[in-house]
Order: sequence, then structure tokens, then C-alpha cells
Amino acid sequence: MLNRDYREVPVEPVSEGITIRWVVGRPEGAPNFAMRVIEFAPGAVFARHEHPYEHEIFVLEGEGVVEGPEGEVPMRPGIALYVPPDEPHGYRNTGEGVLRFICVIPHLEE
Amino acid sequence: MLNRDYREVPVEPVSEGITIRWVVGRPEGAPNFAMRVIEFAPGAVFARHEHPYEHEIFVLEGEGVVEGPEGEVPMRPGIALYVPPDEPHGYRNTGEGVLRFICVIPHLEE
Repeated sequence: MLNRDYREVPVEPVSEGITIRWVVGRPEGAPNFAMRVIEFAPGAVFARHEHPYEHEIFVLEGEGVVEGPEGEVPMRPGIALYVPPDEPHGYRNTGEGVLRFICVIPHLEE
Repeated sequence: MLNRDYREVPVEPVSEGITIRWVVGRPEGAPNFAMRVIEFAPGAVFARHEHPYEHEIFVLEGEGVVEGPEGEVPMRPGIALYVPPDEPHGYRNTGEGVLRFICVIPHLEE
């Protein structure tokens, strides 16, 4: 059994004000999906995009929005989101602190 | 995009002092894996068991231990756990409040 504090996992930059930690994934032997912890600094934006795999998200801390086909959906602690494959989505931290969420994705083809 | 507060998802009993909420899964259209939120009341125990699928876990609140092949592993907020397929594991809430964690599993054969 692997156990680790997510804060001990090295941070990787994504884009301005946005980082990712790959907490559990292929390197740990996980056969099917990867759990990542993503952080947005205040004001950070990840523009609308899409990809052929789903997201299962759980918000840990902060306030933000996801922009999807139906408009803006709130992100706050305790909110879970399911973003289907190929659905456009973009994130924005609208709060004064960090926006932190778990995002699980299937393993992608290598 | 589905968005829901996990607290709005109906609680299902698991065993004494233990509940589960299926937050995102097959009914929501998720193609590969399911995200559940599991809660242990103080003192609640889920005995050692095993199954042919993995767990990816993230502890949200409380204090507990997982008993695995290497002995006891701590559970506290921010700890992620990977339990490989077929590995024996059991949980115990060792704190004074609820032990709450996210547990993601692959879809099982129906």
C-alpha cells in the first residue's frame, strides 16, 4: 500500500498560477486511473478546452467556477463535478485564496 | 457537466457506523471509475478484506488507520493511499470525530 501526503508530492507547473501534483498514477502501479491535486492561485484561469477523456473532480478548498456548455458552475469545498469526455470546460479561481481540487482521469494512451 | 455537493447525495449504510455516498459513477454516465465519499463514525471498524480491484483514496477529515500487509498506515487529511488489487486492507477510525475519505474504484463487472 502506498501512502503519501499530497503536500510531499513534487509540484509541476501547468501554466501561470496553476500547478499539478500527480498523487497516484502509473508510476505507483495504478492500473486504470490517476488522482491529481490541482491548485489555482487567486485569479488564475485555465481557458476553455476539451479532450476525449472524462474528469471526476472534488473541490477541497477555495472558490471558483467551471465554465461549461450550460454556463458557469460553482466550485467550492464539497462540490463534486463530472466533466464528460469531449465536453468543453475551463476553470477560474474567483476567490481570495488558493483553489484546490482533486481531479481523477483515466490513464491515457502512451 | 454534473455538479453536486457530496452532502446532497443520499447516504447508504455499509455496516455499523460506516456509510457511503456514490458521488459520481455509472448512473451519471461516468465510463470508467466511480468516486465515493465514505464516512466512519468514531470507533467504527471495517475488518481486513480484499478484492480484485484497486482503491485510490484521499483523506478529507478525521484520523484513522489502514491495516495492510506492512502494518498500520495513518489516515489524516491530505494523505493519499493506493491499495493495489488483491491486497488485504482494513480501516479503523481512531479519532474523536468522523473519518471521511474519498475512495475511487474502477467500474466493476455487472
